[in-house]
Amino acid sequence: MSQRIVFIGAGNLATRLSLELKKQGCTIVQVFSRTESSAVNLAQKLQARSTTSPDDIMPDADVYFVALKDSVIDDVLTQIDFRNRLLVHCSGSLPLSALKKYSANTGVFYPLQTFSKFREVDFKTIPVFVEACSKKNESILLQLAHQISEKVTVLDSEKRLFLHIAAVFSCNFVNHFYTIASDLLASQGISFEVVQPLIQETAIKVLYAEPQKAQTGPAIRFDENIISAHLKALDSFPEYREMYKEMSESIHKYYKFIYK
Amino acid sequence: MSQRIVFIGAGNLATRLSLELKKQGCTIVQVFSRTESSAVNLAQKLQARSTTSPDDIMPDADVYFVALKDSVIDDVLTQIDFRNRLLVHCSGSLPLSALKKYSANTGVFYPLQTFSKFREVDFKTIPVFVEACSKKNESILLQLAHQISEKVTVLDSEKRLFLHIAAVFSCNFVNHFYTIASDLLASQGISFEVVQPLIQETAIKVLYAEPQKAQTGPAIRFDENIISAHLKALDSFPEYREMYKEMSESIHKYYKFIYK
Repeated sequence: MSQRIVFIGAGNLATRLSLELKKQGCTIVQVFSRTESSAVNLAQKLQARSTTSPDDIMPDADVYFVALKDSVIDDVLTQIDFRNRLLVHCSGSLPLSALKKYSANTGVFYPLQTFSKFREVDFKTIPVFVEACSKKNESILLQLAHQISEKVTVLDSEKRLFLHIAAVFSCNFVNHFYTIASDLLASQGISFEVVQPLIQETAIKVLYAEPQKAQTGPAIRFDENIISAHLKALDSFPEYREMYKEMSESIHKYYKFIYK
Repeated sequence: MSQRIVFIGAGNLATRLSLELKKQGCTIVQVFSRTESSAVNLAQKLQARSTTSPDDIMPDADVYFVALKDSVIDDVLTQIDFRNRLLVHCSGSLPLSALKKYSANTGVFYPLQTFSKFREVDFKTIPVFVEACSKKNESILLQLAHQISEKVTVLDSEKRLFLHIAAVFSCNFVNHFYTIASDLLASQGISFEVVQPLIQETAIKVLYAEPQKAQTGPAIRFDENIISAHLKALDSFPEYREMYKEMSESIHKYYKFIYK
């Protein structure tokens, strides 16, 4: 039987996840967002109702998905009476227990991916991690998860926290290095395009070998000539210079310790 | 007319580049490496001669490719008389001028990619940057570069240095973050596989949007709750904790400055 779902939040994750759940046969009945345009836009795509007022959130849905920035979750949820319906958050880092003051039926539904409103992703390959306060709720979430993904795992809050940290390193911090590369190239009038084959190959390589085996470059070779030339060139980018130094030292230390 | 080429070096880059040049019709006549097994192995694949002695390097080749770690280039090259034949290095960071004491005909041939002996790469898509001491030598290198790649550019030493730094950020430092993610997951008994879709999507995303537009995660949202939870969880990994903190501050600063 199809679940009737309310989405609380209309950001990147809420957008991609709600659209995918709908595509796979779920009924999204309402979207809440503090930003009216976000609520209306997403609700339109989902053929759902929209609201910006916590008081207007429908009381009779089966599952309430919370996809808000962690720091505002409490502000929003304290304004809603969930009548002990199944309340689920989508955060990597918030423990399941954070929801227990709002409902007797709680869960976590965490799809591990980077989401942007502008880009569709293939949910089938996205690992989804679920956790719930009871076997009954766990089974509802497992069923929802299996509707969209082929990689569903039950995982507790503490392990999920480390998973999220690993995701921050593998994605957010990686993308910041792409950004720094783009800035450095722009400073020389060179297009970011030139590093694209390198970026793609670096990512693809770790599909075939552990990252420890894929490490290349001046730091692992401890090629001091290159490292000093790079640090000197980075004199006019003091922040990037400092990062370069620390990353090189970390790489050097890591492989000295492991391989020597 | 096919060039007769000697390779000085038999590491990752020398291996992939020499095999590709041979595949595209060049004749590799000899491989020098200080490590006998490396010289012999690569020479065998190239149907070339091998040597570990600088004295035995053949004096009558057309082009000498130097693919050694920058810090040993001088040690090796001072032992060889190149008789002013075309001497080319493959380093991103070494200026062209570094070769002028060894020959009157010099050049640089820099394919921008991460190379491993174990993995074939498609050279056609790899940007190759060339530089030479004369138009005549430049044209020889351009011709060689066009034989293997569809993306050939003439670039001076200073710009190439920044290109190399951008490559270190986009590849070597990125791979170190993959490694850290792998370590953190292992500490929880979770397989590195779970972050693979995220890693691939993060790389693919910047093919479609500038990295500045693709940034997601707690740092850009300045989601302090999450950031503190992550820092606390990283208490037992002090080095990674420090990196997490600095990267998050850098991301936050970057987007505060640009978008606010």
